[in-house]
Amino acid sequence: MPIRSFHPPQRTLMGPGPSDVSPRVLEAMSRPTIGHLDPRFIEMMDEIKQLLQYTFQTKNELTMPVSGPGSAGMETCFVNLVQPGDTVVVCQNGVFGGRMKENVERCGATAIMVENAWGEAVDPGRLEDALKKNGAAKLVAFVHAETSTGAQSDAKALVDIAHRHDCLTIVDAVTSLGGTPLKVDDWGIDAVYSGSQKCLSCTPGLSPVSFGTRALDVIKNRKHKVQSWFMDLNLVMAYWGSGAKRAYHHTAPINALYGLHEALVILQDEGLESAWHRHQRNHEALRAGIEAMGLSFVVKPEARLPQLNSINIPAGIDDAAVRKELLTSYQLEIGAGLGAMAGKVWRIGLMGHTSNPRNVLLCLGALDDVLSRAGARINKGVAVAAASKVLS
Amino acid sequence: MPIRSFHPPQRTLMGPGPSDVSPRVLEAMSRPTIGHLDPRFIEMMDEIKQLLQYTFQTKNELTMPVSGPGSAGMETCFVNLVQPGDTVVVCQNGVFGGRMKENVERCGATAIMVENAWGEAVDPGRLEDALKKNGAAKLVAFVHAETSTGAQSDAKALVDIAHRHDCLTIVDAVTSLGGTPLKVDDWGIDAVYSGSQKCLSCTPGLSPVSFGTRALDVIKNRKHKVQSWFMDLNLVMAYWGSGAKRAYHHTAPINALYGLHEALVILQDEGLESAWHRHQRNHEALRAGIEAMGLSFVVKPEARLPQLNSINIPAGIDDAAVRKELLTSYQLEIGAGLGAMAGKVWRIGLMGHTSNPRNVLLCLGALDDVLSRAGARINKGVAVAAASKVLS
Repeated sequence: MPIRSFHPPQRTLMGPGPSDVSPRVLEAMSRPTIGHLDPRFIEMMDEIKQLLQYTFQTKNELTMPVSGPGSAGMETCFVNLVQPGDTVVVCQNGVFGGRMKENVERCGATAIMVENAWGEAVDPGRLEDALKKNGAAKLVAFVHAETSTGAQSDAKALVDIAHRHDCLTIVDAVTSLGGTPLKVDDWGIDAVYSGSQKCLSCTPGLSPVSFGTRALDVIKNRKHKVQSWFMDLNLVMAYWGSGAKRAYHHTAPINALYGLHEALVILQDEGLESAWHRHQRNHEALRAGIEAMGLSFVVKPEARLPQLNSINIPAGIDDAAVRKELLTSYQLEIGAGLGAMAGKVWRIGLMGHTSNPRNVLLCLGALDDVLSRAGARINKGVAVAAASKVLS
Repeated sequence: MPIRSFHPPQRTLMGPGPSDVSPRVLEAMSRPTIGHLDPRFIEMMDEIKQLLQYTFQTKNELTMPVSGPGSAGMETCFVNLVQPGDTVVVCQNGVFGGRMKENVERCGATAIMVENAWGEAVDPGRLEDALKKNGAAKLVAFVHAETSTGAQSDAKALVDIAHRHDCLTIVDAVTSLGGTPLKVDDWGIDAVYSGSQKCLSCTPGLSPVSFGTRALDVIKNRKHKVQSWFMDLNLVMAYWGSGAKRAYHHTAPINALYGLHEALVILQDEGLESAWHRHQRNHEALRAGIEAMGLSFVVKPEARLPQLNSINIPAGIDDAAVRKELLTSYQLEIGAGLGAMAGKVWRIGLMGHTSNPRNVLLCLGALDDVLSRAGARINKGVAVAAASKVLS
């Protein structure tokens, strides 16, 4: 029996990413493939670089998308900046800090962990203490917006502390880029990575990164070769660098880059600050509805990400059954908890193209229905009105 | 001045990849994005696995696309199978054997190089000699179809020699998969990687890989953790493995996988042997035209790949100027030489969707015109007729 063409259902993606992709981006991805060394393609690469510089709020020359998902972007930062024998302080307040630790150790370096409760911001005081105790640390790594919990840390404060202790910084901005303020140059971030499928609302598979001059110095003056050939920026730069002449390193994912270009043009046209404002407003509407329903947030208001809302699952409610019903009845995807939070929380994303008033109402209405049918003790029939009030 | 949407020109891609992408594949990529853990998406992943098993001619359970380009697939093979201190015999007859050496060394292992002239097949006798001298070798790696030269090696013979010396094998099938016979199980290949943008005619960015049971044993029983977290198959298997339950590792490139699925369905519907036959026939037509024109091939007939035709640039002809003129006048891309062959050869791809009679005639007609105008001493006006004769 031959396999036939695949026709996906039309979902609304309100999980932790991928977010809904604009039809403009999908259409861009279906444009004719051209060569990765075609002069027109090189022009487009230069535009992507400019658009990413705007999005990251940086003038860093080394700003480009890695040809792989966010975890490849993370690894690109670590394998290029960390050398065997180094000490790296990693602040953990969720799943992705743990992944950073794995990266550090696989580079032959030592990770000093600064542990924070999941769902809370990273405590700057704890970072300071750790750096005082570990004078040999060369790098500090932390997650700006923890996708596993929905908590936001004060990136500027953490970078300042790291710099006072002569450490470079690697910042995970997978979920923050495009959704909440991130100012790479103003905050002095040395290396940052993100993902295409969160607030940029492109399809998954690309990871924008940016490196400042101090990071670049480390990369250019390494004693050990970067352990990954594919991710070695000394080689990748020959392709993504300046000038008309580009050396082949690997074959770029042409059509995925068409999509990223279009997603970044959409963001440029909206304006970064307008996008941040839109994410905030839709979050406030969702929050009004969630709280009116009697549900609670995992993260305290001051550390709450507008684009990723972690909600405590009401007592007695079957996590998987509710998510399945939302998918079946309403073609609506919300996210499960990750790691220690599995089965305890839902993650409702309002990222990028997904973040609009229509989806806020859809999600609240669908939760109201499905939770009621599941026997949850919620205030039925009030969530949508509470959200509408914020939106109007 | 804001940046505008990018509209690529419509090229005909007759370089070493990317090849032309079928409109069916482009359309599939523009379908709505769904979640990477969506039950419908998991079904599609299983179908991709089955389709890849067919395409690789293998029953290997661990058969999947790596979420990155061919060089990420290459590195996935090396970092999972090679451990620090290992000795690996690498057969080199072009650029990509050199990239294998880089991979081996970055894994902390020693590469024993078996050098062959560029443009020739790997000599089985030299491999045998190297293995006799290096009893400690654990692995043999070679390129089945050298994209940099257009030469094909006898993969079965090389694998047999490696196995007689108790070595596992890593085979680069980036350019062979789908274009020329490759039989992973019959030939006993232990680990193989390919690319999406060659004879599969999907857009670049994915690397199909397959691992046999002996390779899997090595991966599962490593003493050292795989140095790459992103490429660690012990982790990736939890997502691409069997059963309905899949653990999140990284976010899969959803829409790129829609495209790969469609490209593999097209290949399944045509039939693998028919596709091999088509590549051979169009190559013979191109060859007739090229030789009628008075141009010569780099590779001897017995080692010549039908899907990648390396042609010696006629004396006194400016490589870059001719390629630019082909692109400008005919929207036709052919490939430059790589590495030691830069400026000396052109690489004409007849891969996947590109491999059709129309493109054979277009390429010969365009070369005839542009080379004549450039003052090359060719037999003008005879190439197209010579090719047509083979095709009719």
